Amino acid sequence: MRAEIEAASQRIAGYVRTTPIMHLEAGIWGLDAKVTLKFEQLQHTASFKPRGAFNRILSNRIPEAGVIAASGGNHGIAVAYAAQKLGHRAEIFVPEVCAPVKVERLRSYGALVSIVGANYAEALVASQARAEQTGALVVHAYDQPEVVAGQGTLGYEFSRQAPELDTILIAVGGGGLIGGVAGWFAGDVRVIGVEPELAPSMARTLSAGEPVDVEVGGVAVDSLGARRVGRLAFELARQYVERVALVSDESIRAAQRALWNDLRIVAEPGGATATAALLSGAYQPAPGERVGVVVCGGNADLRVLM
Amino acid sequence: MRAEIEAASQRIAGYVRTTPIMHLEAGIWGLDAKVTLKFEQLQHTASFKPRGAFNRILSNRIPEAGVIAASGGNHGIAVAYAAQKLGHRAEIFVPEVCAPVKVERLRSYGALVSIVGANYAEALVASQARAEQTGALVVHAYDQPEVVAGQGTLGYEFSRQAPELDTILIAVGGGGLIGGVAGWFAGDVRVIGVEPELAPSMARTLSAGEPVDVEVGGVAVDSLGARRVGRLAFELARQYVERVALVSDESIRAAQRALWNDLRIVAEPGGATATAALLSGAYQPAPGERVGVVVCGGNADLRVLM
Repeated sequence: MRAEIEAASQRIAGYVRTTPIMHLEAGIWGLDAKVTLKFEQLQHTASFKPRGAFNRILSNRIPEAGVIAASGGNHGIAVAYAAQKLGHRAEIFVPEVCAPVKVERLRSYGALVSIVGANYAEALVASQARAEQTGALVVHAYDQPEVVAGQGTLGYEFSRQAPELDTILIAVGGGGLIGGVAGWFAGDVRVIGVEPELAPSMARTLSAGEPVDVEVGGVAVDSLGARRVGRLAFELARQYVERVALVSDESIRAAQRALWNDLRIVAEPGGATATAALLSGAYQPAPGERVGVVVCGGNADLRVLM
Repeated sequence: MRAEIEAASQRIAGYVRTTPIMHLEAGIWGLDAKVTLKFEQLQHTASFKPRGAFNRILSNRIPEAGVIAASGGNHGIAVAYAAQKLGHRAEIFVPEVCAPVKVERLRSYGALVSIVGANYAEALVASQARAEQTGALVVHAYDQPEVVAGQGTLGYEFSRQAPELDTILIAVGGGGLIGGVAGWFAGDVRVIGVEPELAPSMARTLSAGEPVDVEVGGVAVDSLGARRVGRLAFELARQYVERVALVSDESIRAAQRALWNDLRIVAEPGGATATAALLSGAYQPAPGERVGVVVCGGNADLRVLM
């Protein structure tokens, strides 16, 4: 897996930003740990998703029909962005509940937007049927090897910026990010997943021993609301993720406010979920433990910070 | 000057954050330059001001009466923060126009707040009279050697993070930050000041050959609205600042929006003023020029980004 991630890192260099880290001061938030944040919300399109999208697209010959994806959220925006940068057509399927502002954003990157289905699963099915017609390259939101390897470049980058970490906390939706990052560290660093109590797809999957469907909801559902984790992510998490910590919606909102009040960082709910595990005690580091936390998305509603 | 700044950097280490930088991608904002941002808005209290405040306080024996400062803005908040961290009393004089939310913020750091005078100048006079009564240590907003050296640590830090820079753009209010940073670089790197057209204290001062009073107003007046630059800043700027670029309020607002839309960075008007010089063309870098830009404050009204 490391070879694939190193290759992905070279492939997408120049298309994605090397996002900064910051070591926080001792005692912040009452913690007896050494906390290092990675500001991945400063990535293009304000989430880590371009890493996987660029790696998937740059790893394949792209047909005239371009690329196709299903997602009304960060993944769709990242695919539209990457396709525009690389000069390919992009068709993005979004469910009918998708906010008009997101549809506008997708169109601003030149994507053809198809509004189909009541939810992500229905939009995905429609996108797959369309892909068979057109021959466009499918860019899955989390369950393709190039996507997982692309997200894994975040782990590689973080390891070079902060080689001393004991532990990394990562929010989990469909599992692309944690799968790639856990695959990079392969047990050398403790990887802890963090999920909303209301969207516990990986926690249930690890308990069950195989991917299972869960009910999803809550404040982070737009980014972490995958009903079932990917098969690739499951295989990697089973080997290399120590456990999944669950956090309440209230603690996610508190983490958004703490990141804003104490650091002037804007994180969307899914982007603040890993931090919420520290603030709420869902993950309790040992004294002096060096804990890396990924702030993975910044597409927040600013009104919640006011 | 470098020796003082290096000493300041050691003195305040552990009290201020080493703030991250990020290299932006080629072509961003239509620029043919290599732009590196320094995210000083992630500093404690969301501005660079704690650097000077800690250096001033840590360089002196502090009397029982503690420290005293005049400012209803970032400087006052930084002095209150530093005094609380170091276990000293702080008395902050603010003018009657000071927003209640800022008074609350000052009190939240344990400061005694005195609301006196119609503007900063009157609050300053009142604070000086009070200091003579109590014997408290005065922490000036920009015109003391320890304050200027403390702000200069930002230049020292930036030079270690990005040793290849040709040019640095810095917003100017009373001149403490640009004085310290220009004093650090001492001509090795081109230092360009940036001021609002509506608050051109350094531009007028350099034209006049000595500090002069100017009318101040505009969207950045709460942070860059010093009517007259400090004597120390003037002496340093005269030697080491190549020129001052002026930007309109509209371009400051456009820079705030660009930092938010393209980078998810929240900058207050004064914090976006240096960036505005690049976006507006008030400073036009040569092709390939390596330009550092300091985002120096993040105490923004989020409503302007919505």
